[in-house]
Amino acid sequence: MASPQWTRADALALDRDDVLAPRRDGFELPPGVIYLDGNSLGALSRRARERVAETVASQWGEGLIRSWNTHGWIDLPARVGARIAPLVGAAPGTVTVADSTSVNLFKVLAAALRLRPGRKVILTTAGNFPTDVYVAAGLAELLAQGHEVRAVESGALLPALDDRVAVTLLTEVDYRTGARLDMRALTGAAHATGALSIWDLAHSAGAFPVDLAGSGADFAVGCGYKFLNGGPGAPSFVYVAPVHLAGLRQPLNGWLGHAAPFDFSPDYRPSPSIEAMRVGTPPIVSMAALDGALEMFDGVDLAALKAKADRLFDIFTAVLAGRCAELELLTPAEPSRHGSQASLRFHDAYPVMQALIARGVIGDFRQPDILRFGFAPLYLRHVDVFDAAEILADIMASGSWDQPELRLRAAVT
Amino acid sequence: MASPQWTRADALALDRDDVLAPRRDGFELPPGVIYLDGNSLGALSRRARERVAETVASQWGEGLIRSWNTHGWIDLPARVGARIAPLVGAAPGTVTVADSTSVNLFKVLAAALRLRPGRKVILTTAGNFPTDVYVAAGLAELLAQGHEVRAVESGALLPALDDRVAVTLLTEVDYRTGARLDMRALTGAAHATGALSIWDLAHSAGAFPVDLAGSGADFAVGCGYKFLNGGPGAPSFVYVAPVHLAGLRQPLNGWLGHAAPFDFSPDYRPSPSIEAMRVGTPPIVSMAALDGALEMFDGVDLAALKAKADRLFDIFTAVLAGRCAELELLTPAEPSRHGSQASLRFHDAYPVMQALIARGVIGDFRQPDILRFGFAPLYLRHVDVFDAAEILADIMASGSWDQPELRLRAAVT
Repeated sequence: MASPQWTRADALALDRDDVLAPRRDGFELPPGVIYLDGNSLGALSRRARERVAETVASQWGEGLIRSWNTHGWIDLPARVGARIAPLVGAAPGTVTVADSTSVNLFKVLAAALRLRPGRKVILTTAGNFPTDVYVAAGLAELLAQGHEVRAVESGALLPALDDRVAVTLLTEVDYRTGARLDMRALTGAAHATGALSIWDLAHSAGAFPVDLAGSGADFAVGCGYKFLNGGPGAPSFVYVAPVHLAGLRQPLNGWLGHAAPFDFSPDYRPSPSIEAMRVGTPPIVSMAALDGALEMFDGVDLAALKAKADRLFDIFTAVLAGRCAELELLTPAEPSRHGSQASLRFHDAYPVMQALIARGVIGDFRQPDILRFGFAPLYLRHVDVFDAAEILADIMASGSWDQPELRLRAAVT
Repeated sequence: MASPQWTRADALALDRDDVLAPRRDGFELPPGVIYLDGNSLGALSRRARERVAETVASQWGEGLIRSWNTHGWIDLPARVGARIAPLVGAAPGTVTVADSTSVNLFKVLAAALRLRPGRKVILTTAGNFPTDVYVAAGLAELLAQGHEVRAVESGALLPALDDRVAVTLLTEVDYRTGARLDMRALTGAAHATGALSIWDLAHSAGAFPVDLAGSGADFAVGCGYKFLNGGPGAPSFVYVAPVHLAGLRQPLNGWLGHAAPFDFSPDYRPSPSIEAMRVGTPPIVSMAALDGALEMFDGVDLAALKAKADRLFDIFTAVLAGRCAELELLTPAEPSRHGSQASLRFHDAYPVMQALIARGVIGDFRQPDILRFGFAPLYLRHVDVFDAAEILADIMASGSWDQPELRLRAAVT
């Protein structure tokens, strides 16, 4: 943790010149809070709130069943998918919104394994988000065809790629450390051995420009409620490369993935489009929140977004580097090697986070010893991360975190 | 279609004496509409709207990530499941809320097949809701273990039950005709041959008392947005009989089905409770709407609910029987043999429904020739169904439905 020293005046000056600063006005942040947990649950925007209220009172309440047509509920997943596509470098018609990230992972993994019937290894990282590994193991067990989930350290991925690997199942940004994998290189390496590549973009979408098409990724899934700010449990998005759309088969055959859902045909005929990834009726109210939230990205230059995120990271880590030698930065400092997050290791991370929250700085704790801070460039100011780092440094210097009541664990940590 | 003739005064008198009449005040129905499509999308209640607004503005907006604990989001599926359990005759701790009905069907069917490894037939009805059959066929194809989906007419179910049947997959109330199967008899017959029984309660829950525990059903799924009034695409509920909870395995292994989700363990260890049916993060905003909507059932006598639904059915069909010989009632008239719905066959059903909607009576059309009318006893008055039948009779008598513009099909029919 080393960088030039920043002052609060520097941070305020950066805010004055920040082209993204006006975006903050579209969010409804509570007073007295510095919110550094947008990588877990993004903040509420005015448009998300308005879209939900309109969807409930007017579309559902007054329009009732007619709103499937008159308010286009039936096409809402495609419309929201079309908003997300440019954020992840996807061509039109390759992204839709459905279900949860876990369920979408099941679909794309099953689709991928079907395309590589002779290969039995699902290659992933040992530190991948647990649900990714659970989903893979659950599918392998269900198939009972000898599939194996092989989890290796990220540095060992390339040597582990052999002709038994059917698919790589990788999360671009590590949820604990914030380290970012090289999507283009790893996808290329997978393809070179004949494997397919699936990317989990949970901590990528909305945080920096993602280049699914350019990297050649075969499938991807992502989260609606982190940097996309879609609200708690917002539906997930799913991407299928154009080359796989024709003939795509995923096993969760539900009526809304049918080519003609309202024919109510007894035979399943999958949609020839990305909409084959749909299953049942989507949660329209939650999806409306996500649709509204995505308006906050309209016209945003993703390169500027990434540049601001990196400045936020720099300020936060530099202030701490100057004052807190006991906090170990787990996140690679090089901009291309991290997401929009800084993770710090400390043996008593849990009470430190509770002390921070008590002083209005909200980050989160990850087992066993990680303090996690997300930097959402749409609504964070430079001065916010400066102040947050100062408060954390103050807590560490004073030892005020070391109190029994701060060690009481909540259900969700 | 024959019954004693009703007058409008009779209907008004029934409304005056109706113990359920005050419940209507909790719903926000648009003026000038008689809504007979609550079997497709239930109406908005004030509590559903309020719960959504509070969840968005206060819990998400102000509480942010803290609301997983402080507002109990993490337990919301269990709390909503506990509200639904008494409506479907389920013991505490046997119902939770997750995903869509289609996805829940996949889970319970996979769990059931795992319990009957030597049997290869999934027995269902030829007229079952298509998604039920699609899900079964998709799972059978994925397993590639020789499973067969055998679809027979409902009258042929008993003779089709042999020792090759692993599971019966039945919808209690037919979505087109409204005919109701005998859950207790069919479950008993399945068990007598060693098969398990899965029930789809999409058109049952909230319409009449369901007796899952008493009938011995093994698994059930149901819809949150029909008679439960949870809003468009509300999450689905899922039931597992107590005998199957220990050792339950469903293949969609996601982090929220884990026994300890926030340990982030690399190994999947399913929750020993009904929460093993959870997969990913639930759509909290949509689930809050369902939770609020379910308050409308607090203190409702389900026998009284069924009795009112049957009176609504009687009035509607009797008025039409007296005036419209050309409409064929497809729904069995005997109360134990139908859900809360009347279906009428007419060769030009589509423009007739459009003409009805134009006059403020909202039902729906089902391919190829069915007019469908749902009777939601919580918010419909006896006079509503009387008036709706009179308007339909008037449209039929005048031939006003026979206009080219009424034949133009909408995307969702």
